[in-house]
Amino acid sequence: MRVEILCTGDEILTGKTINTNYSHMARRLGDAGLDVHWGTTVGDDRATLLAAFKQAGARADAVIVNGGLGPTVDDLSQELAAEACGVELVLNEYWMTRMTESYARRGRVMPANNRKQAMLPANAEFIDNPIGTACGFAVTIGKARFLFTPGVPREMRRMLDEQVIPRLLKLGGITGITRLKRFHSFGIGESRADEMLAGIPGLAIDGDIKLGFQAHFPQLETKLAIRGADETDLNMRLAPVEAEVRKRLGNFVVAEDNQSLEGVVLARLKETDQTLAIGETATGGIVAARIAPLSGAETVFTQGTIAKEVSAEALRKASGAGIALAVDTKLDEGADRPDFSATIIIGIADAKGTVTRQARLVGGRDWVRTGAAELGLDCLRRHLLGLPVDERIDFERS
Amino acid sequence: MRVEILCTGDEILTGKTINTNYSHMARRLGDAGLDVHWGTTVGDDRATLLAAFKQAGARADAVIVNGGLGPTVDDLSQELAAEACGVELVLNEYWMTRMTESYARRGRVMPANNRKQAMLPANAEFIDNPIGTACGFAVTIGKARFLFTPGVPREMRRMLDEQVIPRLLKLGGITGITRLKRFHSFGIGESRADEMLAGIPGLAIDGDIKLGFQAHFPQLETKLAIRGADETDLNMRLAPVEAEVRKRLGNFVVAEDNQSLEGVVLARLKETDQTLAIGETATGGIVAARIAPLSGAETVFTQGTIAKEVSAEALRKASGAGIALAVDTKLDEGADRPDFSATIIIGIADAKGTVTRQARLVGGRDWVRTGAAELGLDCLRRHLLGLPVDERIDFERS
Repeated sequence: MRVEILCTGDEILTGKTINTNYSHMARRLGDAGLDVHWGTTVGDDRATLLAAFKQAGARADAVIVNGGLGPTVDDLSQELAAEACGVELVLNEYWMTRMTESYARRGRVMPANNRKQAMLPANAEFIDNPIGTACGFAVTIGKARFLFTPGVPREMRRMLDEQVIPRLLKLGGITGITRLKRFHSFGIGESRADEMLAGIPGLAIDGDIKLGFQAHFPQLETKLAIRGADETDLNMRLAPVEAEVRKRLGNFVVAEDNQSLEGVVLARLKETDQTLAIGETATGGIVAARIAPLSGAETVFTQGTIAKEVSAEALRKASGAGIALAVDTKLDEGADRPDFSATIIIGIADAKGTVTRQARLVGGRDWVRTGAAELGLDCLRRHLLGLPVDERIDFERS
Repeated sequence: MRVEILCTGDEILTGKTINTNYSHMARRLGDAGLDVHWGTTVGDDRATLLAAFKQAGARADAVIVNGGLGPTVDDLSQELAAEACGVELVLNEYWMTRMTESYARRGRVMPANNRKQAMLPANAEFIDNPIGTACGFAVTIGKARFLFTPGVPREMRRMLDEQVIPRLLKLGGITGITRLKRFHSFGIGESRADEMLAGIPGLAIDGDIKLGFQAHFPQLETKLAIRGADETDLNMRLAPVEAEVRKRLGNFVVAEDNQSLEGVVLARLKETDQTLAIGETATGGIVAARIAPLSGAETVFTQGTIAKEVSAEALRKASGAGIALAVDTKLDEGADRPDFSATIIIGIADAKGTVTRQARLVGGRDWVRTGAAELGLDCLRRHLLGLPVDERIDFERS
């Protein structure tokens, strides 16, 4: 099935807003086994929108349109969809009532121009939006089914998952359910991870369980996408593959699914009822800034220090914390360049003594700092979980 | 003139990479007075690429193609451009020599597959790339001039400014030169800034000097775009408007053009030969992390502290720094929500005593933290420049 994404709006067209809606939609569709073939961006302009609808309708089987459902005059999606279909706009009484009630519940009167958001093409299929005033809808233009979605990211994301993807799967005759299992690792690059996972039965780019990677330095995300008849079928097929991936990536897996490295560290500190102090040099606060915003961090992370020299033992003594993490980043001399390097010395002090780890990281000033922060948090994770802190990572230079 | 942007590559199409090249190109073109009318995204697929070239060639006057100029088999731009033009690919001897010499200078032999990057359509106009192996080129397909640019952001950006935009201006019969003057402010929203600048002769969205805003919380960027016959003409017309904008935005302007707030603060500390200590609470290191990475910060920023309580006076004494900035962020209780608030208490201690500023910020946990860090740095800037630190800002809730 040929799926296209059509993004509308002057803010996106002119580059004022970076089009993260597009990348989110394309990724989610890909994860669900629906590949996007074409992306179009047009502004809030009648002639251009109409041309874009007609051209996409001639090429695709399904088109997701994003944006243009708001209450103002430059929101043109419903109107142009009706024009492309050769039908009138008709008031959707159900949505009008829902909007009116929603305003009433908050003790407000609905502004008159919101009525526009309940005017849908006469032939439209209504698509619910439980968290906003822009409902979605679907019509057929040319040979393609068009699904219209709101531009507000939070509303789009929910409608995409709950309403759009199920409709597209049905349209493409794709049955069953999907799941995406994610592993977040630190210290291995995409090609090395690919090698480590080679030969697992059923797991491949085009396998029964679809393998994918997404690198966002310093972490690598390994994705297993699976489609099955039902939950039992999915669990049965995924469980052994998931276990094998976890085993092969081993200590490099810092978190899974919606977990984060800093979240895993904080959870472990809470479980073992320990307080933490963090000392850092050239990272200048970025290690602390990873932990501090987390929910409940204030009871665990008691003291942070940024200075020219840090020592885990001294920091532990001075702060009274149960465990102290020192991330000492010594930047090389000279101007920034792609092979700019630094020496990182990690120290972790607790009641039992001090563990250290030293590494040379390479990749420019910003990369080296980001990598140093990640290395520090990962060493702490490893230490808290009883894993070795000195496994060599791919970003190291000997 | 109708300009389109055509982005190619599976990484962009599938959403794996967020398309920041598109937004950069569209913004730069807009700043130069060239409006983008249509954006297309397609993958590394022959049939789709060819269709996209032909459709854009039927609609536009000029098309910027981005990506697909690399040395590997999935880079198809030159080949499909030749096919769309009905011509052969021909070796560009000049570029082949340039690439070979570039490798030789680094003591390396050019890999054989780089030859592909010197194969251009027989009718192509060569476009130089002084910093990479992917040269650009231009051909005519349908009624549009197509300009091909590399996908590597740094190479694309330079080619866009130095080669592509001048060619498009010539193509559109647009003469003269352009300049973009930028003011970065903190504390005023887009609509308030718009009001503050109302009525300046020549300055408007469609004026002689084009006014534009770009909000990236917590800062607002105010842009003045001007086109003129030559430098003298530009300077003469821009100078009075620029001075008036600076005067009206007043103390809210934290930096201009390529300056940053933290850079202005650091420069002022260096000028006055002062060292700085930073203390913070719930911002957890993000104030320090704004200053620490700057070139030369290590001689100025001598001590950072993250703790439950901070006091500028105590910090100044303990650290021995000439000036101490304390940013104390007291988050409200409860779950995160759009109107989540915090009380921010800024203290600045130097030899003369202590200055304080208190504010209630609203906008969710992340926003409140980011805003607190900005407020702290801005108060320090104001204090160092002898400006009032207590001017009310738009993000404050009384």
